[in-house]
Amino acid sequence: MGYTIGQIAQALGAEAFGALDIQVHGVAEPTTASATDLALATNPKYAAGLAQGQARAAMLWPGADWQGLGLQAAIIAPRPRFAMAGLSAMMDQGQGFGTGIHPSAVIDPSAELAGDVCVGPLAVIGAGARIGAGSVIGPQCFIGAGAQLGAQAYLREGVRIGARVRIGARFIAQPGAVVGGDGFSFVTPEPSNIEQVRSSLGDQGAVKNQSYARIHSLGGVEIGDDVELGANACIDRGTVRDTRIGNGVKFDNLAQIGHNVVIGNDCLICAQVGVAGSTQIGNNVVLGGQTGVSDNLFIGDNVITGGATKVLANVPAGRVMLGYPAMKMDAHIDTYKALRRLPRLAQQVAELRRVVFKSSDNT
Amino acid sequence: MGYTIGQIAQALGAEAFGALDIQVHGVAEPTTASATDLALATNPKYAAGLAQGQARAAMLWPGADWQGLGLQAAIIAPRPRFAMAGLSAMMDQGQGFGTGIHPSAVIDPSAELAGDVCVGPLAVIGAGARIGAGSVIGPQCFIGAGAQLGAQAYLREGVRIGARVRIGARFIAQPGAVVGGDGFSFVTPEPSNIEQVRSSLGDQGAVKNQSYARIHSLGGVEIGDDVELGANACIDRGTVRDTRIGNGVKFDNLAQIGHNVVIGNDCLICAQVGVAGSTQIGNNVVLGGQTGVSDNLFIGDNVITGGATKVLANVPAGRVMLGYPAMKMDAHIDTYKALRRLPRLAQQVAELRRVVFKSSDNT
Amino acid sequence: MGYTIGQIAQALGAEAFGALDIQVHGVAEPTTASATDLALATNPKYAAGLAQGQARAAMLWPGADWQGLGLQAAIIAPRPRFAMAGLSAMMDQGQGFGTGIHPSAVIDPSAELAGDVCVGPLAVIGAGARIGAGSVIGPQCFIGAGAQLGAQAYLREGVRIGARVRIGARFIAQPGAVVGGDGFSFVTPEPSNIEQVRSSLGDQGAVKNQSYARIHSLGGVEIGDDVELGANACIDRGTVRDTRIGNGVKFDNLAQIGHNVVIGNDCLICAQVGVAGSTQIGNNVVLGGQTGVSDNLFIGDNVITGGATKVLANVPAGRVMLGYPAMKMDAHIDTYKALRRLPRLAQQVAELRRVVFKSSDNT
Repeated sequence: MGYTIGQIAQALGAEAFGALDIQVHGVAEPTTASATDLALATNPKYAAGLAQGQARAAMLWPGADWQGLGLQAAIIAPRPRFAMAGLSAMMDQGQGFGTGIHPSAVIDPSAELAGDVCVGPLAVIGAGARIGAGSVIGPQCFIGAGAQLGAQAYLREGVRIGARVRIGARFIAQPGAVVGGDGFSFVTPEPSNIEQVRSSLGDQGAVKNQSYARIHSLGGVEIGDDVELGANACIDRGTVRDTRIGNGVKFDNLAQIGHNVVIGNDCLICAQVGVAGSTQIGNNVVLGGQTGVSDNLFIGDNVITGGATKVLANVPAGRVMLGYPAMKMDAHIDTYKALRRLPRLAQQVAELRRVVFKSSDNT
Repeated sequence: MGYTIGQIAQALGAEAFGALDIQVHGVAEPTTASATDLALATNPKYAAGLAQGQARAAMLWPGADWQGLGLQAAIIAPRPRFAMAGLSAMMDQGQGFGTGIHPSAVIDPSAELAGDVCVGPLAVIGAGARIGAGSVIGPQCFIGAGAQLGAQAYLREGVRIGARVRIGARFIAQPGAVVGGDGFSFVTPEPSNIEQVRSSLGDQGAVKNQSYARIHSLGGVEIGDDVELGANACIDRGTVRDTRIGNGVKFDNLAQIGHNVVIGNDCLICAQVGVAGSTQIGNNVVLGGQTGVSDNLFIGDNVITGGATKVLANVPAGRVMLGYPAMKMDAHIDTYKALRRLPRLAQQVAELRRVVFKSSDNT
Repeated sequence: MGYTIGQIAQALGAEAFGALDIQVHGVAEPTTASATDLALATNPKYAAGLAQGQARAAMLWPGADWQGLGLQAAIIAPRPRFAMAGLSAMMDQGQGFGTGIHPSAVIDPSAELAGDVCVGPLAVIGAGARIGAGSVIGPQCFIGAGAQLGAQAYLREGVRIGARVRIGARFIAQPGAVVGGDGFSFVTPEPSNIEQVRSSLGDQGAVKNQSYARIHSLGGVEIGDDVELGANACIDRGTVRDTRIGNGVKFDNLAQIGHNVVIGNDCLICAQVGVAGSTQIGNNVVLGGQTGVSDNLFIGDNVITGGATKVLANVPAGRVMLGYPAMKMDAHIDTYKALRRLPRLAQQVAELRRVVFKSSDNT
């Protein structure tokens, strides 16, 4: 797991200075770095920390005076944050799931595992499932009947993939993630109070109480390449058509994607986000943590929502949104500044009314 | 898995037209339907799609001219959405969990399994648990000691039912759902800052820092018939009395039900909803996605909350609520319309003050 | 599992009255208590219920006339809610996980289990993991390679602890909880639209669409003593440094703690709370249910947030916060009272403008 400074710089396409043969075994913050760590000081504010730690080599910000910082070697990347992607991949110790197929795994004889697939202890792989080359199916995972996983999937412990789900290459899933749960779709024999409220915007009218009948999910889930799914996150099956996720979409922990949802490419769906059924989301969208999106909406390309934004209506492409209900971010900031002054504004209006109407009433 | 148009119409109590002996093996949207699918075109807006697809038969809206649409057969249901319940049940291919009791399951000898119970690979069933007839316990499920499940339960992979939980007939649970986790109940030796803030509405007073002692959950969970629980959703045990869920309640993914909560019959609890401890919810309530309900509240029958509503006070029966804090939906809509105009309103008041008070100050 | 009234009172440090040798086997609410239950009537409002139930003994509020209530024995604790901690621990029947190491568990030979460790069926313990004395590893749990658990851990079914996670003594985790999922950290080759929006507060500028590269999590998770983690809750690994949780922190179900987060001691993190990456939280903080905290913030000691508070900026020590965006609770209450009157305020301003400006326009 050790690399020289020269090897690292070459792998990252970064510049290297000084003793390129110094070998490091990990990365660390400057103050806690040992002599065999590469310290990360990619911003001048971390410079002082280098003297407190033991690092001989560091990744520094462009223009840094590595010798003046007392280092023997340095790596300088034009965009250090991006360099962290490659560096962290090199230094990742992994989960130590082992290799090969653990004898305690329960694999249906009709499942097709490509070469170099690892299956952890107590995993279950159903009939007709297909797992691409180089994939790692972690301990206690479940792969349903007829499900497909592309090459180089990496499933942490306890991931659950339902029957007939189809997933592209390089899929990563964190512990407890679920793909292919049944959609939440119920119907009453006669129109329900929800249907009434939706059409009237708030009036239930004469309510008739009814029990719900279940609409089974017949659709599946289709997921593109390079998708990552967070711990205990959920993506439901479609009702008739598939729920569809594009390429390069990253979901954080506890995110929830309802039935029939369509998400484009290269989106970030942060933790605890919920997207309700049949909503369509474009490309390069970022939904901040705890964002909620109602059902049957259209969210355009490049939309960004701030944390906890609650989207109750369509959002055109390129908008930056915040709040509940969601507004454009700049309007939200203006509005909430005014909101904080609202109690005083109300006093001013009362005062104006007293003067203008010579009235002391408080109505 | 194939049915004729006549068989389907009869099962749904719907009208059928044309070549009733055409057999279909699935349902599909009009544009993607094959010749062996029943196309779903239950709204005139989907009519054009039929010409693009290959369907010979379709479920259509009342009054549709099936022959004019180029079909050989049609099913017309008075309420197509409700017909989908029966139709989707007929067409559901299931998860393919297999039959019988998988040899890798760990079943305590004292557990009682009724006839026709299926237990998937690597499931665990504890001492004294009782499983009703026709139930399916999916792969890697856990059924705790003394837990009871009624007839025809269907547990997807990895569902966890704690000790002594009692559940009625036809329970369905999605992957990773948890029933019977311990309640979140902690107490400090002396009154805590939370208790102080609750009684003072915001003032902590003199804070004494303390550690929390755990109150163990001694109550269980009691769930009625026809309840469904979403993926990774959680229902906690009660502290002394049981947490109680009525009949016909449907919970979506990642919903959270705290200790001692009581929920009536035929409620819909949507995704990521949280109901805090000891709150009581009536019958036929709908809580929209990401709704939160504080602890120790009463929510009346037929209450409906819109998405992300945060309920901080009791809600009388029949109310339709929205917002944070929750307001009646019509008041919320009026208020938020006014809120968007608030920056301009503030300018108008400043202008009035300048004119009325001949003042240029900005206070 | 039975105790006499005298034994219970002694264990709780409470006063006992009457027939101290009455034995009880459980606790119950007054109306449903049997003759072998200790009724809980710690508030005068529950007194009437005692007559309806069968209890011979009860825990009562300070000053209660136990004989007048028809009881044969009573326990009176100065702070009954705190007494419940000890009482409920005595009466807890547990989950019945059994003892010893179940033969179906898969334990790496290099794992070190201290004395009296119980491991449930189908649990997995990885290479080099260390489990402290007296710990219970429930059915279907996963303990990753090199992970450490202190003494007397109690893991309910299906808990997942990732590689190299370090946890102190007396850790409790509810079903499906996950510690050590990878952090949600992605970067684009060039500055992304999120970086642009953050620096401009809302303007995306010229957007260049890019795919995300993954930053691997190299840090671990370090958790102190006496921590409890709710069902399906998640704590992510750090990127370079560890995610750190202090002593005595209690997390409820479905809580989400991002990478690099630091939490002090004796905090309550309620259900469905989300704390985004690199945020630091002090000691004795209470985050109410569904609270969200943005990334890279500082939350001072003794901060309390009400349910669903969305914290978008630093919060000084001792503050009580509510709302979205979070405000001080008293300001929030004033503001939202004014907000409800806003439509009328807007009418009043329009009226003033008509009078003052002799104008009938509606601008």
